[in-house]
Amino acid sequence: MRVYWNGSIKPLEDVRISPLDRGYLFGDGVYEVIRIYGGRLFAAERHWARLARSLRELSIAPEPEAEGLEQAIMTLIHEEGIHDGIAYVQVTRGEAPRTHAFPNPAPWPNVLAYVQPYPRPEAIMRGGRAVLVPDIRWHRVDIKTVNLLGNVLAKQRAQEAGADEAILHRGEIVTEGSASNVFIVRGGIVFTHPATTAILNGITRQLVLELLQAQGVPVVERPFTVEALWAADEVWITSTTAEVTPIVEIDRVPIASGRIGPVTSLVRDAFMAAVAR
Amino acid sequence: MRVYWNGSIKPLEDVRISPLDRGYLFGDGVYEVIRIYGGRLFAAERHWARLARSLRELSIAPEPEAEGLEQAIMTLIHEEGIHDGIAYVQVTRGEAPRTHAFPNPAPWPNVLAYVQPYPRPEAIMRGGRAVLVPDIRWHRVDIKTVNLLGNVLAKQRAQEAGADEAILHRGEIVTEGSASNVFIVRGGIVFTHPATTAILNGITRQLVLELLQAQGVPVVERPFTVEALWAADEVWITSTTAEVTPIVEIDRVPIASGRIGPVTSLVRDAFMAAVAR
Repeated sequence: MRVYWNGSIKPLEDVRISPLDRGYLFGDGVYEVIRIYGGRLFAAERHWARLARSLRELSIAPEPEAEGLEQAIMTLIHEEGIHDGIAYVQVTRGEAPRTHAFPNPAPWPNVLAYVQPYPRPEAIMRGGRAVLVPDIRWHRVDIKTVNLLGNVLAKQRAQEAGADEAILHRGEIVTEGSASNVFIVRGGIVFTHPATTAILNGITRQLVLELLQAQGVPVVERPFTVEALWAADEVWITSTTAEVTPIVEIDRVPIASGRIGPVTSLVRDAFMAAVAR
Repeated sequence: MRVYWNGSIKPLEDVRISPLDRGYLFGDGVYEVIRIYGGRLFAAERHWARLARSLRELSIAPEPEAEGLEQAIMTLIHEEGIHDGIAYVQVTRGEAPRTHAFPNPAPWPNVLAYVQPYPRPEAIMRGGRAVLVPDIRWHRVDIKTVNLLGNVLAKQRAQEAGADEAILHRGEIVTEGSASNVFIVRGGIVFTHPATTAILNGITRQLVLELLQAQGVPVVERPFTVEALWAADEVWITSTTAEVTPIVEIDRVPIASGRIGPVTSLVRDAFMAAVAR
């Protein structure tokens, strides 16, 4: 596999990350996962905007130029022959002797990118299973950092239970999935957690909100409870890789009839149509 | 600088961490900082025990053998000519294609260690300054992981304010420092947060609790409030590098008289005597 590293493309084996990279010592870095459909990047400009925001929130500078990064990724897509896949981009604060506070002078950020094939998950069509897990992550998950242990442990719980995703809750409030946003439908109205510091404002989440509005489906961005999740008519999750995945079962209990609901189908198909365009 | 990496000692420049190391992609690793005094490791067995616990909590296996690691560190201490310093040890889950859940089969953990000189901070004798910062970290800070962005941002706040440390609070409760534990004295009684999942149970914290008990000073491990912090007769912090550092000022406001108090002096000097032994 060939990867992009600080301005050049080289074999993965030739990339040497220093033990003093703050990404390694502190998780002091941010990332994006961008979908590749038909060899092209999907919603790239939104991902670059979010990457820039994450970097600003952590005072990591200078930002890598999106244009150059995108060109490098297109080269990788071509070289690796990727049709449907993902591009992974990570930027860390760079290398410096270990101290918690930002190094002064600031090191030069390290930029990594690679692409890989990624098939559409089967759960999009068959419906997925979830487990409910307490959200023990830090309180700035709106920044897309590589401090992901809370997400890792939640996803591991899902995997051990044979589920596709972990749905997280802080106390009574459902926040999001371990790597996705959560939507419910109740009485014809769609609810999802607002884009506060308690969730990562997914690109697919944003696109789905726009699709729902275009379809005239009423949507409320408001926190909802675990109880409301259990009582929902429909549940789905969104993410760059999961697209719109219906959730038909949580903790082995069916949601409503346990079948994929009409609003979920509508938005899933509308999203797939948007992708096809 | 020469470092230990997976069984051998080599120049820092020759260590190549893979972009697929889960320490880099998820902060999926743990660490220890061990004090070196007079060329010898201080309280090493307690650090090895905590490292083993951290690894177990994250199901990272197999654990590196403490004996071999300690021998490697002693070699580094000798090679680098360290008298007073620190040893840094980090173990990550290892390398695997990126997925949140633990890779199956489990990769082999990556083990890094290095040593460096570290002088005794001046604040131990002159008294240190702190700032009060909300604790936004995840809810398993009892595991000594490299998911340290919350600590990094807090320490940065302290540095920008010209302070030595950030004291963290979750709501009304004082938890600990960004890289230390916090003790207060009120009416001759010492209070510190109990060793729950809300704090990292510092080795120096443990040693200081034992010293206080040996000196007959009453100690209560119980959460205390921000209000109690402001009203304290004395405040100090403990850590492997800060030892027992008096805090004489918080947010530019003096604690009590703004001078180092008698219980603080007692425990600081008892700790220094323990180190000298």
